[in-house]
Amino acid sequence: MADLNVMGQRAEAAKYELQRLSAEEKSRTLRRAAGRLLERAEEILLANGEDIANGEKNGMHPGMIDRLRLTEKRIAAMAEGLEQIAELPDCIGEVMERFVRPNGMEIEKVRVPLGVIGIIYESRPNVTTDAFGLCFKTGNAAILKGGSDAIRSNIAIVNILRETLREEGMTQDAIQLIEDVDRQTAAEFMRLNRYVDVLIPRGGAGLIRSVVQNSTIPVIETGTGNCHVYVDKDADLNMAAEIIYNAKTQRIGVCNACESLVVHSAVREKFLPLLSQKLKPRKVELRGDERVREILPDECVPASEEDYGTEYLDYILSIKTVDSLEEAIAHINRYNTKHSECIVTENQEAAEKFLREVDAACVYVNVSTRFTDGFEFGFGAEIGISTQKLHARGPMGPRELTSYKYLIRGNGQVREL
Amino acid sequence: MADLNVMGQRAEAAKYELQRLSAEEKSRTLRRAAGRLLERAEEILLANGEDIANGEKNGMHPGMIDRLRLTEKRIAAMAEGLEQIAELPDCIGEVMERFVRPNGMEIEKVRVPLGVIGIIYESRPNVTTDAFGLCFKTGNAAILKGGSDAIRSNIAIVNILRETLREEGMTQDAIQLIEDVDRQTAAEFMRLNRYVDVLIPRGGAGLIRSVVQNSTIPVIETGTGNCHVYVDKDADLNMAAEIIYNAKTQRIGVCNACESLVVHSAVREKFLPLLSQKLKPRKVELRGDERVREILPDECVPASEEDYGTEYLDYILSIKTVDSLEEAIAHINRYNTKHSECIVTENQEAAEKFLREVDAACVYVNVSTRFTDGFEFGFGAEIGISTQKLHARGPMGPRELTSYKYLIRGNGQVREL
Repeated sequence: MADLNVMGQRAEAAKYELQRLSAEEKSRTLRRAAGRLLERAEEILLANGEDIANGEKNGMHPGMIDRLRLTEKRIAAMAEGLEQIAELPDCIGEVMERFVRPNGMEIEKVRVPLGVIGIIYESRPNVTTDAFGLCFKTGNAAILKGGSDAIRSNIAIVNILRETLREEGMTQDAIQLIEDVDRQTAAEFMRLNRYVDVLIPRGGAGLIRSVVQNSTIPVIETGTGNCHVYVDKDADLNMAAEIIYNAKTQRIGVCNACESLVVHSAVREKFLPLLSQKLKPRKVELRGDERVREILPDECVPASEEDYGTEYLDYILSIKTVDSLEEAIAHINRYNTKHSECIVTENQEAAEKFLREVDAACVYVNVSTRFTDGFEFGFGAEIGISTQKLHARGPMGPRELTSYKYLIRGNGQVREL
Repeated sequence: MADLNVMGQRAEAAKYELQRLSAEEKSRTLRRAAGRLLERAEEILLANGEDIANGEKNGMHPGMIDRLRLTEKRIAAMAEGLEQIAELPDCIGEVMERFVRPNGMEIEKVRVPLGVIGIIYESRPNVTTDAFGLCFKTGNAAILKGGSDAIRSNIAIVNILRETLREEGMTQDAIQLIEDVDRQTAAEFMRLNRYVDVLIPRGGAGLIRSVVQNSTIPVIETGTGNCHVYVDKDADLNMAAEIIYNAKTQRIGVCNACESLVVHSAVREKFLPLLSQKLKPRKVELRGDERVREILPDECVPASEEDYGTEYLDYILSIKTVDSLEEAIAHINRYNTKHSECIVTENQEAAEKFLREVDAACVYVNVSTRFTDGFEFGFGAEIGISTQKLHARGPMGPRELTSYKYLIRGNGQVREL
């Protein structure tokens, strides 16, 4: 059994050391870590080979094997990710606000690390370097718990990262990996409030639900995306077809892909055949209501109530007909996961109403939902897409891994009332 | 049994209505509610009288009875609180950032309500109007769960607030009170993730611990304060005594009161007798280590390890001697609750090191810890003091009851990679 309390104590000691590091020290270390990953790629590939062999022996699904597999090229991408994070500006220490109170005390609100971040993830070993890079950049100590399938790969990667830290004269405990892969340890980890400030699950809906249900540590919920595109009566229909084609088919297994089309009844006759043609080469299955099937009797199967609530992550699109913008907004607010929603319209009033009233992290006018992404937003890196409202919403870059504190300077102020 | 799902659905419907209200509509309604509380004070006092009688019958502690008791004056203060919130600027809709990406899409980060806020509190009925005022001001629907002792008072107050909303032509479900006071209902409420965006406990350490342990909804932890004042070797000792006198005795039952003194060994001989004299009229019990007791053999009893971790909320002060600033910082970071910490020093370098390295929401130089308060910080109102790092830290005013969303406007952008 991992002694999580000991790991917690080490992380706590490390966090005080990390918050004192300069921007330059952090960047240099990240660049060095990138170099070491490349130099020692062989060692990582060897460990990964054992994970793969083990997975195959246990009948792991080929898609899962693919997620687990590392190659020279994937290791190079992991190193490149660390290089990119090294180049980003450092936000720690930034003065966010400064004000003086009538009694003369001066208050500064300053950006600080969160402290200790726990990350629970599944079988993709590249999350290990990503998570380390972002946490280290922002002065946070990281405790990682990866999936059992990738344990050998993760141990190899974390060893290299810890050795790099030691070479740089820094605390190795900036990153710790929980090597025990049993459920009991995971459950205990989720209750390590004394040492861990926030827990971020990265993975499928099941993992995220389990963390939300079982953690007593504050959680940032990420990832599920039942994203809609609404084609308004005043839409540019060609643009609408392009946007849906992109959002549905450009990459299907991602949370910002479009899963559902909402179409205004006034344009359904013109638009649905156009869309159906556009999607045909990609063999997208259409599931629609009665008024969709009137237009596309052969190309569309009936949608059930459940379809409207489903994140397919597949070549399937649900379609709902509405008679007004209001109905579209109500439908989306009912079924969405508060991730990314789009209206296609040339009508500015409709666009503004949609922006205002749809409840989601990212609301788009005439843009594909696929842009909900830390890199696309210009944050330089991303730990995930938050679908909750507390702390951070939407793409989470380095800044979203920080907190703040108030510094108050005075000359003997005391409180009278 | 309260049907919490029905309440959740009503709150969800209300939140969409609330986010559309103008600043003026919200202010007018808050002022109207303040007026109605005064006009109908008799009704509230009658219900409160029943709660008090019931409490007395059940042998409730006099201190608790006092917290529960409403008077004309206290109702006037509640109304005044709503008036003040009405006057505050409205932060909803504020554009927090705006940037344009290379592909031409324009991204705006806009402040929005959190949505539905759950508040669990104990026997002080004034929390009912406070919570309503702040939630309503920020466009949030509130679901309140007060203590069983105050249930009749809370019902009377919430009835008046809901009737005011109806008079103003607004949804009454901006505020809902859970009238069932059993534990089962509280436990269910803490798992109402589908409808409630955040849960804020207000009350003693036991209540807060229970909510943190049992809630699956994101929680903002508030309130516990084991606050220290560190008297440095370069302190102005008279200022130090004034600050400790204020922070310890000005009001003892509050989370920003000083509970522990950390004193540098170089000044203990001069400072401790000075402090002891200053505190004598307020009969503060001193509990110190051996080196404190050498100086104050008669005035100070021995402190146990437990003392250093205790929030007394009483006329008691623990005292620890240290030989360096570093030792002071380490002691504070070990025992504090991340609330408010103060250094008294004339040495700028020591001050800056303390500000940087002490881990707390508010870190003071030469100012009483009693200023950690939304009003004192100029936020105009306060829902509590957050001691966690996620979302909000320190005094939480209206702005801390908000989230944001990204609005993205374009002209057909699709993603290539």
